[in-house]
Amino acid sequence: MKPLSEQIKEKPWKGWILFLFTIVVVFFLGILASSIIERRAEAVFAYTPKVEHGQWEPRNDVWGENFPRQYNRFLQTVDTSFMSKYNGSAERDMLEEDPRLVVLWAGYGFAKEYNQGKGHEHAIDDMRKILRTGAPVDGKSSPMPNTCWTCKSPDVPRKMQEMGVAEFYKGKWETLGPEVVNNIGCVDCHDAQNMNLRISRPALAEAYDRMEIDINTVSHQDMRKLTCAQCHVEYYFKGDGKYLTFPWDNGTSVEAMEVYYDEYKIKDWTHTISKAPMLKAQHPDFELFETGIHAQRGLACADCHMPYLNEGGQKFTDHKIQSPLNNIANTCQVCHREETTELLANVYERQDKIKQNRDKLEELLVRAHVEAGKAWALGANENQMNVILQDIRHAQWRWDYVAASHGGSFHSPIECGRILSTGINIAQEARLKLARVLASFDYNQEVPYPDITTKAKAQKYIGLDIDNMNAQKERFLKEVVPAWDKEAAKREKTYKIKNL
Amino acid sequence: MKPLSEQIKEKPWKGWILFLFTIVVVFFLGILASSIIERRAEAVFAYTPKVEHGQWEPRNDVWGENFPRQYNRFLQTVDTSFMSKYNGSAERDMLEEDPRLVVLWAGYGFAKEYNQGKGHEHAIDDMRKILRTGAPVDGKSSPMPNTCWTCKSPDVPRKMQEMGVAEFYKGKWETLGPEVVNNIGCVDCHDAQNMNLRISRPALAEAYDRMEIDINTVSHQDMRKLTCAQCHVEYYFKGDGKYLTFPWDNGTSVEAMEVYYDEYKIKDWTHTISKAPMLKAQHPDFELFETGIHAQRGLACADCHMPYLNEGGQKFTDHKIQSPLNNIANTCQVCHREETTELLANVYERQDKIKQNRDKLEELLVRAHVEAGKAWALGANENQMNVILQDIRHAQWRWDYVAASHGGSFHSPIECGRILSTGINIAQEARLKLARVLASFDYNQEVPYPDITTKAKAQKYIGLDIDNMNAQKERFLKEVVPAWDKEAAKREKTYKIKNL
Repeated sequence: MKPLSEQIKEKPWKGWILFLFTIVVVFFLGILASSIIERRAEAVFAYTPKVEHGQWEPRNDVWGENFPRQYNRFLQTVDTSFMSKYNGSAERDMLEEDPRLVVLWAGYGFAKEYNQGKGHEHAIDDMRKILRTGAPVDGKSSPMPNTCWTCKSPDVPRKMQEMGVAEFYKGKWETLGPEVVNNIGCVDCHDAQNMNLRISRPALAEAYDRMEIDINTVSHQDMRKLTCAQCHVEYYFKGDGKYLTFPWDNGTSVEAMEVYYDEYKIKDWTHTISKAPMLKAQHPDFELFETGIHAQRGLACADCHMPYLNEGGQKFTDHKIQSPLNNIANTCQVCHREETTELLANVYERQDKIKQNRDKLEELLVRAHVEAGKAWALGANENQMNVILQDIRHAQWRWDYVAASHGGSFHSPIECGRILSTGINIAQEARLKLARVLASFDYNQEVPYPDITTKAKAQKYIGLDIDNMNAQKERFLKEVVPAWDKEAAKREKTYKIKNL
Repeated sequence: MKPLSEQIKEKPWKGWILFLFTIVVVFFLGILASSIIERRAEAVFAYTPKVEHGQWEPRNDVWGENFPRQYNRFLQTVDTSFMSKYNGSAERDMLEEDPRLVVLWAGYGFAKEYNQGKGHEHAIDDMRKILRTGAPVDGKSSPMPNTCWTCKSPDVPRKMQEMGVAEFYKGKWETLGPEVVNNIGCVDCHDAQNMNLRISRPALAEAYDRMEIDINTVSHQDMRKLTCAQCHVEYYFKGDGKYLTFPWDNGTSVEAMEVYYDEYKIKDWTHTISKAPMLKAQHPDFELFETGIHAQRGLACADCHMPYLNEGGQKFTDHKIQSPLNNIANTCQVCHREETTELLANVYERQDKIKQNRDKLEELLVRAHVEAGKAWALGANENQMNVILQDIRHAQWRWDYVAASHGGSFHSPIECGRILSTGINIAQEARLKLARVLASFDYNQEVPYPDITTKAKAQKYIGLDIDNMNAQKERFLKEVVPAWDKEAAKREKTYKIKNL
């Protein structure tokens, strides 16, 4: 075949064909370029601020004006459909599902009401409704301090700025009721100036300060954990000022925190049956996660709980914070090339294996409390009981560390198994010593296990008058809460917002 | 620039340059092709049989004539350098490292001698030397039956063919001493006709038959597990005929096998201190592996313990069967993109977490045996003790299931943790009941823990005369074993080998 240039010299119409072909190609290239530019414009448009608000603006819908996609997804944390597979309802009453918990927490608020956790958009509502916060009406106080608000609302950083941190924690829970009204949201994790992730709660930073670890220079990936670790950790309310404090000075393992609590003689309450000086684990999610393989491979909370989404050419983190099991395609399957059903089965198998021994430890703890109660009733003295009560404290601490940690049996099943084994051993040591104490009072037989087959029976067994609490709570919700909301709405109208 | 054809028309020397360039390229292509053909020839050559031998040929060196690469690597299973990091020697005396084992096995052979396992090339030598097989001299018998030989040698399939399987198992261990002399090897896993993997030991096939699972049609990948599972499993010697049997009829979980053993009232021995009817777990390696994530992802034993090697253009499985930790580059790193040090740390962390509670359970079991011994001494009767002895049996079975399983705490750490938790609970239940029995004899205090800080002290505590056993073993090795080898060498000369 001759070169094209020669062919065209001979038959000029071949040149015209080439010319037309080039025009068509260039035309479609133009369309492609336009499409790329348009989507880019859409992305830029999406990040064009519409309003200017203050650094401590607590209202998520105001931030949502500038970040509609994130805000829209965040609102969906109200979704509770993931619970419906259990009982078809939007609530899971954990005390009803497992009445042993009532006995384990006898004398403590958790025995009154304890439900399966819901999404962030439920924070304020759930806190007002739960029996644990009491019914502050007629000048009566809530049993809880203001420290309880700390993790619940973007009103908290605002108030801490106004009042000072130590002042914020002081006082009873109802005193800040009209101030803390917005659900967990934007300002809790973001800097309003540049939307960088930032630590808005002092307890985490203070804990790292005491450990002489500088968190100001950590990577963005680490911040995708630390913003969550502001709240999803173990903590306690220190001293009369109820100062929110992480017990991390010796480390974050279950043993290191136990040493800390023992050293400072911290107790959350005295058990009404066994008289043991108890600890309530909060939710050491971050601490347990850090011991697991996903943390060791460099993953952050957001990788699985806030994976990337793509909408209109814009990539953004999904602010519908939820279990990755609701969204395996965008989470697990980014790395793991297995079928959804197989990955789910892998997770459930881990959870089941941990649950088996967690349940056993629960039963042993019920027995230990009841047996200690029997020993007191027979006339045991503190000398005989003190070591035993320490055992009960330590065993239940280990149970609670695993049981209270969200996702712990997936995040770190081997560590959970290890902790439960030590808890089972210590609970049984307590019971062994109790058997000797009981025998010394000529009670040389098994102490009967109480009838706690339902929540109602268990609450009656520990002497709780739930009906009265419910009636008072209802009054509080009807009489006090609307006034709080009204006062808050009035105040919020004074916040400066500038439309751009 | 003008087309090349026109240029050549104008300056013909340009054509010569093109011609020479083409010649050079073709020449080097030829060299490349030759190299490929040569390596292919080498590979073909490597698989050209040099000798023809019988289907049941027990001598590995004869098979090695045809498969020198595999045989050469197999010989290296004699390597014990992996143990030197512990104590610089080629042996690890586990009773010295952990004298509690002596008490756990009081009344059973394992209390006499128990060493860290070595490679397959040590099978016969180690079995003759270990105190557990006794010293059959002067007409005295070994305490062990011929069943013990089953997993130790390629002479076993040969003898089973000659004698019949049931006949093989019968009789005392020394009766087949001159017959079973070759270390574990080729015929144990391979068919001499076509080198296919095959099951040479009947117990595995019989177990699957009873479970109505057909293993004749399994995949090659499954055979890369099942050949190992012929021996690396839990088994026992059934009835007076000591018929090798897997207790898998109800399943292969620790609980399913416990039910089996209880149902058939199997006991391996009666504990000399507690009088408990004990079980000795063998090495449920396969069973535990099957519960772990690597099995769930489709891996077989050979993937990590016999990875592929490449020599002289030939790809073959590495027959130096060993821990993948000695060879992370060719095993873990085929899938896992992490540094060697990190992968090693991940494995050790799993092992450490399991070991912590395994050690605790050991201590509890020592206490339980000693406390039961005390109860008998004080006059306890069988009615009081039977439930307790069952607890001790079950707790130690669970400890041993984990402790005896090679690599279990890596293969399936979550399952190991689960099992140990249940073992700790049951051991403590036994001790709780024992406390009540002891109190009923006015012994209401802790039973002192024995001084078993060394192997010698522990063996003295359980009443073993090790010096005498060692002296007899020395005589046996000097007087009997050489005669066995001489007889075997004479017999082996009669086997037909045809040079090809």
